[in-house]
Amino acid sequence: MESNLPLKNLVVLDLSRVLAGPYCTMVLADMGARVFKIEHPEGGDDSRAFGPFVGGESAYFMSLNRNKLSMTMNLKHPRAKQLFLAMVRHADVVVENFRPGAMERLGLGYETLRDVNPRIVYAAVSGFGHSGPYMLKPCYDIVAQAMGGLMSITGHPDGPPTRVGASVGDITAALFATIGILAALRERDGSGQGQKIDVAMLDCQVAILENAVSRYLTGGEVPGRIGNRHPSITPFSSLATADGWVIVAAGNDSLWARLCGVIGRPDLAADPRFATNGDRTAHWSELEPLLTEAFGARTTAEWLAAREGAGIPSGPINDVAQVISDPQVNARGMIQSVEHPVAGPVAVTTSPVKMSRTPVDREFRSAPGLGEHTAYALGELLGLSLEQVAELRREGAL
Amino acid sequence: MESNLPLKNLVVLDLSRVLAGPYCTMVLADMGARVFKIEHPEGGDDSRAFGPFVGGESAYFMSLNRNKLSMTMNLKHPRAKQLFLAMVRHADVVVENFRPGAMERLGLGYETLRDVNPRIVYAAVSGFGHSGPYMLKPCYDIVAQAMGGLMSITGHPDGPPTRVGASVGDITAALFATIGILAALRERDGSGQGQKIDVAMLDCQVAILENAVSRYLTGGEVPGRIGNRHPSITPFSSLATADGWVIVAAGNDSLWARLCGVIGRPDLAADPRFATNGDRTAHWSELEPLLTEAFGARTTAEWLAAREGAGIPSGPINDVAQVISDPQVNARGMIQSVEHPVAGPVAVTTSPVKMSRTPVDREFRSAPGLGEHTAYALGELLGLSLEQVAELRREGAL
Repeated sequence: MESNLPLKNLVVLDLSRVLAGPYCTMVLADMGARVFKIEHPEGGDDSRAFGPFVGGESAYFMSLNRNKLSMTMNLKHPRAKQLFLAMVRHADVVVENFRPGAMERLGLGYETLRDVNPRIVYAAVSGFGHSGPYMLKPCYDIVAQAMGGLMSITGHPDGPPTRVGASVGDITAALFATIGILAALRERDGSGQGQKIDVAMLDCQVAILENAVSRYLTGGEVPGRIGNRHPSITPFSSLATADGWVIVAAGNDSLWARLCGVIGRPDLAADPRFATNGDRTAHWSELEPLLTEAFGARTTAEWLAAREGAGIPSGPINDVAQVISDPQVNARGMIQSVEHPVAGPVAVTTSPVKMSRTPVDREFRSAPGLGEHTAYALGELLGLSLEQVAELRREGAL
Repeated sequence: MESNLPLKNLVVLDLSRVLAGPYCTMVLADMGARVFKIEHPEGGDDSRAFGPFVGGESAYFMSLNRNKLSMTMNLKHPRAKQLFLAMVRHADVVVENFRPGAMERLGLGYETLRDVNPRIVYAAVSGFGHSGPYMLKPCYDIVAQAMGGLMSITGHPDGPPTRVGASVGDITAALFATIGILAALRERDGSGQGQKIDVAMLDCQVAILENAVSRYLTGGEVPGRIGNRHPSITPFSSLATADGWVIVAAGNDSLWARLCGVIGRPDLAADPRFATNGDRTAHWSELEPLLTEAFGARTTAEWLAAREGAGIPSGPINDVAQVISDPQVNARGMIQSVEHPVAGPVAVTTSPVKMSRTPVDREFRSAPGLGEHTAYALGELLGLSLEQVAELRREGAL
């Protein structure tokens, strides 16, 4: 049952759409929070219209919104505003990812919510944050990845700047927002006061640049694109095999010596050009062709078998199909089939937070239909009758 | 002062090294947790030896370990084990990123720690997790990125699989571990019981694949490398200008129509091949050359000025130097200079969690020297005298 989940009893009002906000509330819902997703009655979350579709339902939407409840509200309607504020009194957390100022224009800015419930934790996820000169600029994942520097260091030396294939602009903001919410709840347990958390996609991109920033700020050299190499560990890259690719990650001198044995070139371990990690990094242009020649002689599977025997960190480059069928990924329960009433069984990835006493791995609830839980939520949180809900719906508030 | 930080009073014992564990405890320390970094007396955290160096100190280490305290312990020494277990009694959280089984071999596995302090939250960050067939395999960031599928969807259609230039294999594991710790602490406040959190880099890579997984599992098509495009939104890419690159992110039909006006091709908005987002995605091979031709005629700065006027999401592709000097990044306080007693002023990125009532932006403490706080920590937590500490050091326990 859900009664043993770590975030049980946490009530989250989720006004967010598409990815950054919904990913944050997905993480919370996966851990047992009661997430009431509040959608506009006309169409709801934009991502309900994103393909591909299964039985008319968006796979994108279904994967991000499992374990949540959906209710509709037209927040421009005065009675919906009233209802929303009444719900805020019963909630712990509000999450939104509108453009800054949008909630204030609705009359539902943080200060208004705080007046209603001083304990509310209000998380705003936006492209550039709720301050600064770019505050009101529109932003998508690729804009954050580009402006935050990540694209400039992703890709090959002779190629263009490269977008990461997953939306890490949105997702890292979602994860930092989740962290901020949980930290603010902990602080609230002592102080009795909530607060506003303002997480910007651009800020989060800067925060994950890590050693690229310290390298630039200390050495003065602007980090460029170095393909699959590591800036300071060598060999730490992909190499072409007879039939594909293999990862080589020999992070220290003893692994390097073992690798030289495995590839039948023990002479390289004794070569002063490659004696230390610094030497190997400095002489990569000489080392790479030697490794390329050696690795091209055998298949990926052959190299993996040989290298694992030697305890050298290694692995294949899996495509998404191979990931889904990987024995470790399955042993960890990272893929789950969720039964959707309209779409049927839909496979989704699960939570990577594996907890020993309150495990979050359980049968996930499928993503909700638009407004599926409107009457339930208003009854549960505010005691409204079905008649009252019907009337509000007729009025256009829901 | 630090008395207003959201995680004040949280005591974290940090046995982790290099990146995934230290990034997790960095996030906690940035929010005010008291992080006691426990390092081996001989050399400490491996990353103290990673270049580049400033005044002999590793920039990599300094950026990840600000706001922490360092103490040395040789956990193979029986008296150090005793001391560590005594510290666990006073702690809330233990973080480690050893290979699975290493803590048990030290006699310090989770069950042992729980017997000493049932309230302890124990977070283990590893490559493949503490279960499953790959459990004991070594892993580095690039192995997780490769095996988790991210490299297979990052890069250009005619190019090889591509590693993300930041270590998102480590960093996403760090962020999910932080979320797990904070959720477990919240649950503990009710139940009185801690637990073990087992976060695997590979699992986290799967969790961030998001729509790539749902696209494959519903449509059956294995997602490939599509360069800087979005799989289902068009135009949403980078385009070459007369002097560089610019990001184009026209996520809906009205933005598309406006974009056609800005590039002087209103005819394209009326072209049925490009009428809807689905049409534009399906006909990208016809659309791309038209956009490439148009964008090549003006500079990045000219395009940004024109497009921002039209409210179209857009931005430059910044390198790390441009990120550091960006007005928004600076207005948000994302870069801070920390005064290190040996290295002098060292610039680091700050926390992207901007909190209104308990802001975590303050003057950060510089990263500690190896064992700088050993005597302080043992005195503070266990009441040991300086003489006792000196004796333990002579014995080789510290």
